[in-house]
Order: sequence, then C-alpha cells, then structure tokens
Amino acid sequence: MPVLIDGLQCGYFNREVFQELRRGSVTCVTITLGFWERCVETMDRIARWRDMERENADLILIARGVADIDRAAREERTAIVLGSQNAELFEGRIRFIELFAELGVRVVQLTYNNQNELGGSCYEQEDSGLSRFGRDVVREMNRAGIVVDLSHVGNRTTLDAIRWAQKPVAISHANADSLFPHKRNKTDDVLRALRDNGGVIGCAAYRNITGDYFCSSLDAWCEMVKRTVDIIGIDHVGIGTDRSHGHAQIDLDWMRMGRWTRAIDYGAGSAAKPGKTPPADWLKEVHQLGDVPAALTRAGFTKQEADKIAFGNWRRLYAATFPA
Amino acid sequence: MPVLIDGLQCGYFNREVFQELRRGSVTCVTITLGFWERCVETMDRIARWRDMERENADLILIARGVADIDRAAREERTAIVLGSQNAELFEGRIRFIELFAELGVRVVQLTYNNQNELGGSCYEQEDSGLSRFGRDVVREMNRAGIVVDLSHVGNRTTLDAIRWAQKPVAISHANADSLFPHKRNKTDDVLRALRDNGGVIGCAAYRNITGDYFCSSLDAWCEMVKRTVDIIGIDHVGIGTDRSHGHAQIDLDWMRMGRWTRAIDYGAGSAAKPGKTPPADWLKEVHQLGDVPAALTRAGFTKQEADKIAFGNWRRLYAATFPA
Repeated sequence: MPVLIDGLQCGYFNREVFQELRRGSVTCVTITLGFWERCVETMDRIARWRDMERENADLILIARGVADIDRAAREERTAIVLGSQNAELFEGRIRFIELFAELGVRVVQLTYNNQNELGGSCYEQEDSGLSRFGRDVVREMNRAGIVVDLSHVGNRTTLDAIRWAQKPVAISHANADSLFPHKRNKTDDVLRALRDNGGVIGCAAYRNITGDYFCSSLDAWCEMVKRTVDIIGIDHVGIGTDRSHGHAQIDLDWMRMGRWTRAIDYGAGSAAKPGKTPPADWLKEVHQLGDVPAALTRAGFTKQEADKIAFGNWRRLYAATFPA
Repeated sequence: MPVLIDGLQCGYFNREVFQELRRGSVTCVTITLGFWERCVETMDRIARWRDMERENADLILIARGVADIDRAAREERTAIVLGSQNAELFEGRIRFIELFAELGVRVVQLTYNNQNELGGSCYEQEDSGLSRFGRDVVREMNRAGIVVDLSHVGNRTTLDAIRWAQKPVAISHANADSLFPHKRNKTDDVLRALRDNGGVIGCAAYRNITGDYFCSSLDAWCEMVKRTVDIIGIDHVGIGTDRSHGHAQIDLDWMRMGRWTRAIDYGAGSAAKPGKTPPADWLKEVHQLGDVPAALTRAGFTKQEADKIAFGNWRRLYAATFPA
C-alpha cells in the first residue's frame, strides 16, 4: 500500500534526496524533466534518470504504470514519475507524444509560464484558450497515456482542456485562489470543473503561491487542504508540494526567463520578492513529508479520507490515465 | 520460415512498395530512417513509420525482435527493421543509444559518407580509425541491441570496429572490392575480419558499386554472390540491395551533399556519372527480388546454402544482436 504520493517536485535529485524521500515514506513523486527544454534536452534528462535509476536501484524505480508504484510501496522504494512542466519537448509534433510516452514520460503540463502553441498561461494578459493544436495534443496525450497537467496553464485554457479531455486531468501543483489569491492558483469554477472531470489538484507548499500562514505549520497547511476539500470534495485533492532540490539563483533564472526574454521576470515572485523563497516552515527537510498523513488525521480527516489525499486520489488518476 | 531478408533499402516507402515487397516474398527489410538526420528529424521518421505500420497493418509490421520477423513470415507480411545510415541521430550522446533502441531502432551505420565523431568514412583521404567516442558507441550499441553497420565506413575504422565489437557486425550493403573495385566496397582483409567476427555482408545491387556486368542479369549477380562466398564462406553472405524507392535528384543531392558542402559531391557516382543510375536490369521492379532464391540454386548453391544467403545469415545476426 502506498504511503504518500507527491504530484510534483523539481530540482536536482541525487542519492541524498532519494534517501530523504525514503525517510519521509514518499512512495511516489512526479519529477520535473524540464521547463523550457525541447526534445533533445528532455531526452538528456530522461537518459540521466535512467542512469540514476541504475545507480540507485535500492532506493528508486522509474514508474511506467501504477503496478510500478505499488511495487515501489511493497519494496520500500520511491517510484519516480517522469513529468515535464512544458510541452516544448514535443517540438510542435503530434507524433512525438507517443514516442515520449514510450520513453516513459507520464505527465506533461500544457504550458509553463508562457503562452505556447497549445494555449495560454496563467501569466498572460490574454488567455487564448486551447488552440487547435492544443486540442489534438490533449486527445493524443489521453490516447498515449500521458497525464494532462494544467497547473501553470491559464484559467480559460484550463477550462477548455478539462472540457476537451477524454480522461481525468491534473492540476499537479497549485492551490485554490479563493484561499490564497495568486495568478498561479485556481479559481473555484476551475476547481469545480476539475471535480466534474474526475481530476485531482495537488496542494502546493511553495511559499509564493501558498502564503506565509499556510507555510507556518503543517497543521496550518492541512487546514488549507481541508478548505480545498470543502470546495471540491475528498476525491479530488492530493499533494503537490512543488518542493525544489538544490536550486540556486541560476536555476530560478532559467525557470523564469529561460531563453525567452532579455528582461527580468519574477515568475511567481515579484519585485518585492525577487529571489528564492524559503521552503514552508514545516518542509525544511524533505523527509518531513512523512508527517503529513498523521497531520491530516489531526485536521479531522478519517483514515480513509487521509489516505485519499496522501496517495489514493493520485493513484486513481494515474491508473485511469497511464498506458494500460 | 522467412523467404528473403534484404539488409538495406532506402527511399520513400508507401503502400505500393509494401505490395511489391509482398509480391517478391520479402519477409524482412531494413529501411533507412536517415542519412544526415539528427535526433528530432530521425524521430519524425520513426513516427512516420508508426503511422505507416498502423495504415498498412495487413502488409507490414515494425520488427523489434527476431520473433517479429518469424511472425511476419507466418502471416505473409514484411517485417520492417528500422535502420539509420548515420550515427547523427545520437547527437554525440552515448545515452541516446538506449533511448533510440527503445524506440525500435535496430541498425545504425557508424558513419555515412563523411567522417564523424565516431570514425572515418570510405570517402575520406585519411581514415582516423575508430575514435574514443566511437569505441564507446560500438559497445553501447552492442549492449542496447543495435546492429553495428559498417557499409560506408572507412576500412581502417571498419577493422577497428570489428575488433572492438563484442557482437557480430554488419556490412549491410556493399560488395567485395576485389570483385568490383570501388571506395564503397570492402577489401578482402576486411571481409575476412568480418568472417572471423561472425558478421554478415549484404551483397548490393546498386549499379555504382556493383558494376554493369553484375547488374546485367540475376545470374550474373548470383555469380558475384558466389564469388563473395568463395572469399568468406557461406555463413557470412546475405542480400543488401541498396534498392531505393522513388528517389529524385533532390533526394540524391541530400544524400550526397546534405548540409555539409556548398560544392558538388558525387557520392558513389562521379563527374562522368553524376545522376541517378538505373537499377540493376534484373531489379527494375522490387518484386523481382522474389526470383533470387531460385537463381541462387541455379548458381550452384544447395537449398540449405541458398537459404542462408536469402535469409538465414541475416536472421542469425539479428538474433545475436537485437535486444533479448
């Protein structure tokens, strides 16, 4: 039985991080292959993960199906789900979707911080909605077994994608905008559409989109989780910390500016908060994720409800979307 | 039981070509994904082959293992082996070899007409031999289940690769230089090294490297095959016609000049023979390949020997090299 599934982490993984994940009983984590990386660069990252899997086979495995997540749970390893925070890896090619699925990619966010050929992002002034290519990509991802992730996607494109998808979708790492207003967070109408689609939102712990209060203690964060459940129900809320590993300013610059601007972009930050924000007070060490299940129970969830949030909802979504 | 395996064809495949291959009882053919194409372009070609497989499932299948070739034989379909005539698809990355193997690539030629990071080509004045990267690539291809093809490779690099390889290698489409002298053809010492390695040469029918006499009739061509067997024995000779489909001058220009020169390069041709040469007189239509087995018997081979040339030697090599 899995213990905890984290719907999104990013940064530099290595043996120490894998040991921390084990210490926190993290059964499964979706990692970030890239933000702006296109085909070849993403393949570099996949290849590096193959190496890391071989080098750390006692701690991790790359999950291709839900059976691998269950196996990781049995063997006390962490299942790695390969995800990309942008669709650039496809390089505009509908046919690359099944090729990357074959290489093990299981989650792709339609847009990162910028509009692309698929649709609008949460930071664009105008959100075009899902484009013609975007529609084809959503259906092809459904067919190929890749989860459609809408976390950084604009609200209009998010709603379009939810309506257009033939399988449940993910908002892997975001919060309810009604609980902490931020462009990166999702309005209640988007969350209700997600619920109607059978999808899952992973509640984030990234300070810029979670706020100091919900970062101040694990109980405060579980209060946010509970209020999110109040909006869309117990079957649609999971964990998606957005926890990063070893990011320095140069990595933040890449995430925010990539190659697309000569100016400064603050991403989820601002001129007042330009730099790296500290992790949530309750998540200074990755292994502290292991405290989440007990805290969910403390927050008033039954064991069964806490299990849905800690792993069951993600497991159900992955089972419904990963390749058969 | 397979009927005939052609170790190399190139050009534009389509339903009409597949029907011709069936008409000629061709059980298996290694096709050409590219000449100068790098990662993304090669993935485009692989993706196109997935489409062609779906669209022509009654006629072809893409072979990932020898069991697929045998299945194609039973079901009277043609097994397509995905090959590349250059190593550019790897873009200098040792780790891409296992990724492309996973996408179904089964044969890669170390160099096409030009020297690359791996070694020297048959047209270079100086052949460096197998480079440091080339050595790693050969071993990694062995590990990942991709056949090392040395047809356009320079003789020194060919000998190095044969010595360095841990599995049998292929010269998928070339002839014996002692039978028809040409830079693209292989000297007897190279052929003997190939024999000692357990490898296979596919006798070509491309006029520029086969000559008018061996192209003049199927019996003449079988005479060349027989003389090749005289050099290296019955277990090391197969068919590798180098037959092209639908190539126009623009395709010939791409094959010869790619993006590497502003000048004119004639490839296997010459200033006197600059253009597309006519196919062998006995291979004007692709289905005429079906006449080869009977002609081999006419040339004096026993049924068992003819079977080795027509399919058995390639099948053995593929079984020894494709992924388990």
